[in-house]
Amino acid sequence: MGMVGGGRGAFIGSVHRIAANMDGLIDLVCGAFSGDPEKSKASGADLMLPPDRCYGSFDEMILKEKELPADRRMDFVAIVTPNHMHYEPAKLALENGFDVICDKPLSFTMEEALDLEKTVKETGRLFALTHNYTGYPMVKQAKKMIEDGKIGTVRKIVVEYPQGWLSEKIEGSDHPNFKQATWRTDPARSGIAGAMGDIGTHAENLAEYITGLQIDELCADISILVPGRLLDDDGNVLLRMNNGARGVLFASQISAGEENNLKIRIYGEYGGMEWSQQEPNTLILRWHERQMEVYRTGVGKLYPEAEAHRRIPAGHPEGYLEAFANIYRNFVYALDARNEGKLQDPVYDFPTVSDGVRGMKFVERVIESGKSKNKWLKF
Amino acid sequence: MGMVGGGRGAFIGSVHRIAANMDGLIDLVCGAFSGDPEKSKASGADLMLPPDRCYGSFDEMILKEKELPADRRMDFVAIVTPNHMHYEPAKLALENGFDVICDKPLSFTMEEALDLEKTVKETGRLFALTHNYTGYPMVKQAKKMIEDGKIGTVRKIVVEYPQGWLSEKIEGSDHPNFKQATWRTDPARSGIAGAMGDIGTHAENLAEYITGLQIDELCADISILVPGRLLDDDGNVLLRMNNGARGVLFASQISAGEENNLKIRIYGEYGGMEWSQQEPNTLILRWHERQMEVYRTGVGKLYPEAEAHRRIPAGHPEGYLEAFANIYRNFVYALDARNEGKLQDPVYDFPTVSDGVRGMKFVERVIESGKSKNKWLKF
Amino acid sequence: MGMVGGGRGAFIGSVHRIAANMDGLIDLVCGAFSGDPEKSKASGADLMLPPDRCYGSFDEMILKEKELPADRRMDFVAIVTPNHMHYEPAKLALENGFDVICDKPLSFTMEEALDLEKTVKETGRLFALTHNYTGYPMVKQAKKMIEDGKIGTVRKIVVEYPQGWLSEKIEGSDHPNFKQATWRTDPARSGIAGAMGDIGTHAENLAEYITGLQIDELCADISILVPGRLLDDDGNVLLRMNNGARGVLFASQISAGEENNLKIRIYGEYGGMEWSQQEPNTLILRWHERQMEVYRTGVGKLYPEAEAHRRIPAGHPEGYLEAFANIYRNFVYALDARNEGKLQDPVYDFPTVSDGVRGMKFVERVIESGKSKNKWLKF
Amino acid sequence: MGMVGGGRGAFIGSVHRIAANMDGLIDLVCGAFSGDPEKSKASGADLMLPPDRCYGSFDEMILKEKELPADRRMDFVAIVTPNHMHYEPAKLALENGFDVICDKPLSFTMEEALDLEKTVKETGRLFALTHNYTGYPMVKQAKKMIEDGKIGTVRKIVVEYPQGWLSEKIEGSDHPNFKQATWRTDPARSGIAGAMGDIGTHAENLAEYITGLQIDELCADISILVPGRLLDDDGNVLLRMNNGARGVLFASQISAGEENNLKIRIYGEYGGMEWSQQEPNTLILRWHERQMEVYRTGVGKLYPEAEAHRRIPAGHPEGYLEAFANIYRNFVYALDARNEGKLQDPVYDFPTVSDGVRGMKFVERVIESGKSKNKWLKF
Repeated sequence: MGMVGGGRGAFIGSVHRIAANMDGLIDLVCGAFSGDPEKSKASGADLMLPPDRCYGSFDEMILKEKELPADRRMDFVAIVTPNHMHYEPAKLALENGFDVICDKPLSFTMEEALDLEKTVKETGRLFALTHNYTGYPMVKQAKKMIEDGKIGTVRKIVVEYPQGWLSEKIEGSDHPNFKQATWRTDPARSGIAGAMGDIGTHAENLAEYITGLQIDELCADISILVPGRLLDDDGNVLLRMNNGARGVLFASQISAGEENNLKIRIYGEYGGMEWSQQEPNTLILRWHERQMEVYRTGVGKLYPEAEAHRRIPAGHPEGYLEAFANIYRNFVYALDARNEGKLQDPVYDFPTVSDGVRGMKFVERVIESGKSKNKWLKF
Repeated sequence: MGMVGGGRGAFIGSVHRIAANMDGLIDLVCGAFSGDPEKSKASGADLMLPPDRCYGSFDEMILKEKELPADRRMDFVAIVTPNHMHYEPAKLALENGFDVICDKPLSFTMEEALDLEKTVKETGRLFALTHNYTGYPMVKQAKKMIEDGKIGTVRKIVVEYPQGWLSEKIEGSDHPNFKQATWRTDPARSGIAGAMGDIGTHAENLAEYITGLQIDELCADISILVPGRLLDDDGNVLLRMNNGARGVLFASQISAGEENNLKIRIYGEYGGMEWSQQEPNTLILRWHERQMEVYRTGVGKLYPEAEAHRRIPAGHPEGYLEAFANIYRNFVYALDARNEGKLQDPVYDFPTVSDGVRGMKFVERVIESGKSKNKWLKF
Repeated sequence: MGMVGGGRGAFIGSVHRIAANMDGLIDLVCGAFSGDPEKSKASGADLMLPPDRCYGSFDEMILKEKELPADRRMDFVAIVTPNHMHYEPAKLALENGFDVICDKPLSFTMEEALDLEKTVKETGRLFALTHNYTGYPMVKQAKKMIEDGKIGTVRKIVVEYPQGWLSEKIEGSDHPNFKQATWRTDPARSGIAGAMGDIGTHAENLAEYITGLQIDELCADISILVPGRLLDDDGNVLLRMNNGARGVLFASQISAGEENNLKIRIYGEYGGMEWSQQEPNTLILRWHERQMEVYRTGVGKLYPEAEAHRRIPAGHPEGYLEAFANIYRNFVYALDARNEGKLQDPVYDFPTVSDGVRGMKFVERVIESGKSKNKWLKF
Repeated sequence: MGMVGGGRGAFIGSVHRIAANMDGLIDLVCGAFSGDPEKSKASGADLMLPPDRCYGSFDEMILKEKELPADRRMDFVAIVTPNHMHYEPAKLALENGFDVICDKPLSFTMEEALDLEKTVKETGRLFALTHNYTGYPMVKQAKKMIEDGKIGTVRKIVVEYPQGWLSEKIEGSDHPNFKQATWRTDPARSGIAGAMGDIGTHAENLAEYITGLQIDELCADISILVPGRLLDDDGNVLLRMNNGARGVLFASQISAGEENNLKIRIYGEYGGMEWSQQEPNTLILRWHERQMEVYRTGVGKLYPEAEAHRRIPAGHPEGYLEAFANIYRNFVYALDARNEGKLQDPVYDFPTVSDGVRGMKFVERVIESGKSKNKWLKF
């Protein structure tokens, strides 16, 4: 694999590398870690890469790697740059025969998103988007239980994603997290949305993934609560799903004291389920007029989809990095299946470019609704 | 005390009686437990009341008790009937010199609410509304911490009240809870709202009580999710508070599997707090970039307002009945203070008729917003 | 009811009164609240008792009340004094025809305990001991589940009771809790044990009550960890039950920061259960190789024994005072049944003098074992 | 790195490989995955190793690798075999100039343990033992807080390790976990202890690591609770520490329904701490007479020792594999420091052969005490 972005000090680049390393299936062989060739080489050296595989730009990487013999060149490209730098490397990689795994949200604009979707279709390349929260075993279990009708028709969804790290205006400061904060609050790098793009899209993706439903209409209150900021840091959204279910989605980066508290509750006719990213090995099933059940990773009979996404026995907690690694692993399985002319076992699914398009549409609509005086906006 | 309503099989009547009994300050001396004189006497007999103090109607009770000598007659009236039967006994009691403690919501209509508020003012009687959730020690602690600026300016509120007991259409059935369900889903007895009146008002009251803020605008999605029902069983509301804070309020009686999960989270500049009615002795304080604290009833230094509302030491859980009893106790303290010509210590506060008016306004607005195509409705 | 002890400033006296008040079944009609007649009258006045029913000693109370007409005199005696003053009033009350409800541990010495048991048998009076923790609905549920074989043969028990309030030497100080601390750490009032008598007996009682097993052998490490104290403030005990099950019991009053954290875990062939007093409405069932269940007060199908000990619906937390009140209520039901010549419904059980004898034996053995160099001591 | 053991179907071998992969610092270059050369090659092929680096025995591996040029041969040996096969490969590796990382317990017998300690000293090689639970950030935080006197002198320790997976006699069956069960319950492969060796040693290690104290005396009840088993499946132990603190240690593999619930509570003069492996990113501090604090990985100011052992920000849960990988990473850092003639930063500590000797002594003593009629046994 070759990496675009993820130089020294980048949080998500390091996450992608650990995720890629974990199962011993992927070797990082090259990278364009920075637009500055010196920095790129320095970052590559930290990772024990030879200087000639540390490129000064993504196009240099893609074009030079393409010319290497098949057994030496990178197999696929991982894109871990800020939002405004997803489209170009992704497009170039696809067009030059490389499969792509890309951080979310998919792109800077809706147009880019649609063009990437088209390019994937045309080139026949594989494209994974790291909506990593769907990689957790208990998220898979939840999805299958709903598919199987265990809680009946879904009537209500509450999905929330409070963080508190932007409670102060740390962007442009010397705070340890200033680097993440600065680009995420900058319209030139993040696009039209702040919190809604960064984490609102995770909430939207998780809700639609687990329930198998789609948002049909929404009504959003999108706010900037820390003065001087240019992009939303808080958003609260009413949802109506395509089966008539009601919903609430909120995402916030000014919920002071919250860590990374993505949580979903889904209520159907017979019961409700709750999953929380900070305790990801637990899935709570509250049943109407009977005892609550607590499903745990590795305990009892779970769906094959859940079992396929854990590595170790019950009670040995697996977390964020393992879920992230599941996306990478499944992507590699899909590459292998494709290369061997086989069908990928659907148990090993991963988010695709189409999930990314949907996420971008969510961003577009939710920001539009935030500015509107009308209540409901069609998705 | 004399009771209106609360005959055999009534849930809330029994709660009021336990609450009144708890501290040994109040004796139930009479009641109009049912509109049927026989049933009223039978209910009174269960409670060891003499037949001549078991009346067939509230007006009979109020008028006859009024004629008893001061040391024998009831001190005040407790009204525990369904919503449509609050106004008349409350009004009559006030006009005949009796103080009143009344279940929530205050009345059937907004007009009644305003008239009761006026009557209280005119008669100078005391009026308590049993928004019992504000009786918990940790709710008092939360309120005082915000007043004291511990979390800074409030930026965001999430208050939720999911229940699941109306996930099936049990009204008019032979389900054990059919009696509660039937009147609560009946517009002739509940008024214009179902869930929003029954529990949405608790959520609204709790949020305004703790934060000291008021809802300024709201945007509601009010739904009937169990087919055949006439009143809302689910509602999701966006809030804007009078200081600019954003909020989400939801209340639901079809959140299958949920018990009585009233919960509030309030985020300010420096931290966020969380209180949950099902674990009421705990108040979580999540601080921005420092360690979370967990305040517990009876542990460490708490505000006098919190201390005054517990009866026993830390780790001896106090619950719903104790919080409810706090309303009764504080009401009695207020009667005593008034009777002795003293001012009530503000530590012993309780919800009044004005809280009730505000609750009725919430019901009115939230139902109106639910029907509107416009986004924001002024409160 | 007439009360012995429980004057101003006493914690447990107030608990007993609230418990007695709660269901409106019991009136406090007299008391010997203090050995000092003036103090007794003052305490009685706080409780709105007439001076002539506030006695200066328990024998005065018992003998004078006996001479009152049956419809005026107290029905039974509640004893809420420190341990060294249980025996005499209990014995005198029984011998004068009064039923007795008494705080735990039963007595100051083993001899007293055995004599009380004999006296109860001879007089035919009813005797309840307030091991209040067995009054919780979920404790009843746990007991019945084990009786019904749901978890199979019990193999292991872990029962623990950490408190932290004696982490400092507050006895004899001006600390707010000094009164409780002083008598509990005083051999002249507590007997041979400190923590083991005060709370160890609760742990022992709970374990035997729920499992239906008895301790057969024990091996104890009994310690004084705060220098200068005369009685144990920490004890750790290995247990062997009469069915061969293994166990661990520990009780401590120097577990700094702990509130009142009585907790029991019981493991059988098919699963394990966990109940914690600080969250008493929850009973966790962990099943071998299948999903964990969480039983909650009022949710789903529970045993009649559990249902009979709650007052309000699920999600309305009931706590310590309600469990305590269950002992009083069941005791009154037993008095009524006896008076009407009926058998008490076994659903309404309560701890008796024999549980008290067993508790005293536990105290005796555990202290003896603590001093012994031999490992196992027969119970 | 070269691996001994860990062929197809082995649980712990796969854990070691993921741990080694995670940070991209270690390549698996060879292995003796099985005593059967064919199986070893097949396992190696799964791991994409060339056949000539898949050896049929550990001695073949060690001796052949030694002859390879320094830039090709393995750097160190990871030993992941059952207990009875730790000593020989470890000894041979050390004597041939290889550093060693070895699974716990250190060895089959005490003699082996002492000899390994001596060999490490004589050869000057580095030796890490994978007591992985000490690799968690919050365990480091706990240790440092105690070192710094935050809770004062330690008075009491409760360390417990309940598992339920051996509640049935699955050894020798066709149960999915039969392989792990069979060797762990077999005296010929596990040694004199079952549960106490497998998990009791983790509990002992964790308690001594965090507190900095040592067990001075113990009194154990060691049992076989599933009939037909040859080694202990449950053990309960009273502890006295070298500073006079009291303790309870229990470890069990028949606590039906439990997953892997290692948990420790430590009480000092000023407060108590609690850490639980199943929620490893949380460290609870209960303070005497002030509010409880909850420390979380990545939140607020933590000790450098804690910070150095997380990879990602707060709220992104890290688990068992990350803690395990911390041991590997720190071991590699130590190799690098040694190779560069530097001192290892003490922040990056890891368990050594001496911890292993102490664990073996614990096993020896606890089993001896279990058979003894005397109460206390010197450690």
